Amino acid sequence: LHERKLYETNAPNASTGIINGQSSNVLNWDDVRFSWAYPMYKNMLANFWTPFEINMSNDRKQWPELTADEQETFKKIIGLLAFLDSIQTDYSSKVADYLTDSSLAALMQVLSFQEVVHNQSYSYVLSSLVEKDEQDAIFEYWKHDEILKERNEFIAQGYERFVKEKSPQAFIESIVYDVALEGLFFYAGFAFFYNLARNQKMVSTSTMINYINRDEQLHVNLFAYIFKETLKENPELNTEENLQFVTDTFRKATELEIKWGHYIIGNRMDGIHMSDLENYIKYMANKRCKLLGAGIPFPEVTENPMKWIKAYKDVDEGKSDFFEQKSRQYTKVSDTNGFDEL
Amino acid sequence: LHERKLYETNAPNASTGIINGQSSNVLNWDDVRFSWAYPMYKNMLANFWTPFEINMSNDRKQWPELTADEQETFKKIIGLLAFLDSIQTDYSSKVADYLTDSSLAALMQVLSFQEVVHNQSYSYVLSSLVEKDEQDAIFEYWKHDEILKERNEFIAQGYERFVKEKSPQAFIESIVYDVALEGLFFYAGFAFFYNLARNQKMVSTSTMINYINRDEQLHVNLFAYIFKETLKENPELNTEENLQFVTDTFRKATELEIKWGHYIIGNRMDGIHMSDLENYIKYMANKRCKLLGAGIPFPEVTENPMKWIKAYKDVDEGKSDFFEQKSRQYTKVSDTNGFDEL
Ligand SMILES: [Ca+2]
Ligand SMILES: [Ca+2]
Repeated sequence: LHERKLYETNAPNASTGIINGQSSNVLNWDDVRFSWAYPMYKNMLANFWTPFEINMSNDRKQWPELTADEQETFKKIIGLLAFLDSIQTDYSSKVADYLTDSSLAALMQVLSFQEVVHNQSYSYVLSSLVEKDEQDAIFEYWKHDEILKERNEFIAQGYERFVKEKSPQAFIESIVYDVALEGLFFYAGFAFFYNLARNQKMVSTSTMINYINRDEQLHVNLFAYIFKETLKENPELNTEENLQFVTDTFRKATELEIKWGHYIIGNRMDGIHMSDLENYIKYMANKRCKLLGAGIPFPEVTENPMKWIKAYKDVDEGKSDFFEQKSRQYTKVSDTNGFDEL
Repeated sequence: LHERKLYETNAPNASTGIINGQSSNVLNWDDVRFSWAYPMYKNMLANFWTPFEINMSNDRKQWPELTADEQETFKKIIGLLAFLDSIQTDYSSKVADYLTDSSLAALMQVLSFQEVVHNQSYSYVLSSLVEKDEQDAIFEYWKHDEILKERNEFIAQGYERFVKEKSPQAFIESIVYDVALEGLFFYAGFAFFYNLARNQKMVSTSTMINYINRDEQLHVNLFAYIFKETLKENPELNTEENLQFVTDTFRKATELEIKWGHYIIGNRMDGIHMSDLENYIKYMANKRCKLLGAGIPFPEVTENPMKWIKAYKDVDEGKSDFFEQKSRQYTKVSDTNGFDEL
């Protein structure tokens, strides 16, 4: 893969290709290669939020009333997210270097910025709930917890191969890992927080998780666009093998997410049955494969078994009043940034 | 320079050095190396704005009433900024790769995101004022205009040397070019827009320029921190020669900015005398050198000859009501994000 140059006087502002193309690197949003890029940009900006707008005082009061299991799971999920969003910040920035289209590189920088905000939200939440020592320890979970390590390494090896090889093949494979990360590996954790909110617990944290979920939805859509355009522009990548790779990767990712679900949720949480969670994860895996244009790994799962989640995910569509709402002046949900159908 | 790894299990979350240090790459804002990083992060987020919040209808009405000189200069400055903020997006992202401190890398990603917004603002303004063909042509100025090219190449060669060499020396030199770009090369242009606003012209565009100016101020402060911490942690870089390099670079940058000032402003604009602009540019160059801990290139200039600019720059401090104000819910100016003294 060619790295996008700092600037290239003889190249056009609108690039000639998504990878290995010519691009001046000067960005004129009215002269870009892909018509979906600017609407995506607007939606990403409309999503702007910061943890500082979330008042943690009620959660702080409720925290000691959570069961030991709930506290433990809460901390493990935050520990997971802290790792994933940290490497995600870097991965997206490295993807930006190899997109030879300045508008897509710009979208990647916006995405990377959002990961920075997500990351800070975990420190923000923990600093309201636990002592500094415990917060620091939670940010070390990824180093020691075996199940966490297995999941993280699954993603990280796909990213690292791209970072090292920088081949078109490693690039598109890394995107599949990205969609597994952003589109599947967060979802058992999201379900846990939404279930707490359903029980009127830790509503501020869940509000924050909802904002993160909303961002992740756009990230999944953006990476799916990039994946599909790359295949379209590079027919040698548009193979049965690569589509099979998507399905196989999501089958493996689903196994890991289910294992993680057993570990953090099992049948120990009021309101979530592990068998439903398993099918929910499979359901989401199918959705992501479809979005990437690949065959689904679990044709036997055709319905979302945890439909209640929709009300929590789609808070901005006005379908729920469970969350503490404040004015979100930058947010206007439109068709293109909307949460996907469950 | 060592590139920061995607993750490093055996390294601490708080890094051991600003460059060539050990860092797990997992970001816990309550466990970072530099105490100034989190306040900087909060201030950068507090600055959030988007061009969409700026109503261009009055500017659109006024545009045909500008003199031919004013229109020409307006377009040239936007053409300049479009180039500079495009390469700036990439430069900051590349700096992020070599900062072995995840919190500083995160700040660079926030900065890079802000450059993306600046960049979009130029398309946004032009699309309200001129036809698509003319907008596209303005985004090509940097390819043809000799004076623009000379200025741009001055910065770009410093950036490219870092991109190619990735040595600590090329790194700190590139930061000096960055501060010249963000802290000097925008300022004749800023003065032009503030002078228009002072004459009740193109107030929306100037409001946008003011937001950009406010962001740039933080960028200059951030790069100055990074420069000084790098010198502090790496005594072999903390030499008289390197401080002299700062002064010399700003002397050369001032020459180019003055040449540009003659070219775009000269004595053709009501309200700006070229001799004042020259001294203003020298005054700003002195400020930047002081900030970087180096000797000043123009000791004979001790006062800002264009004090009226302060009211326009400092709009958020409530000292001016010239700009159309709207609710800026995310902005709280504090000591640390405030505009510097003029
Ligand atoms: Ca993400
Ligand atoms: Ca800048």
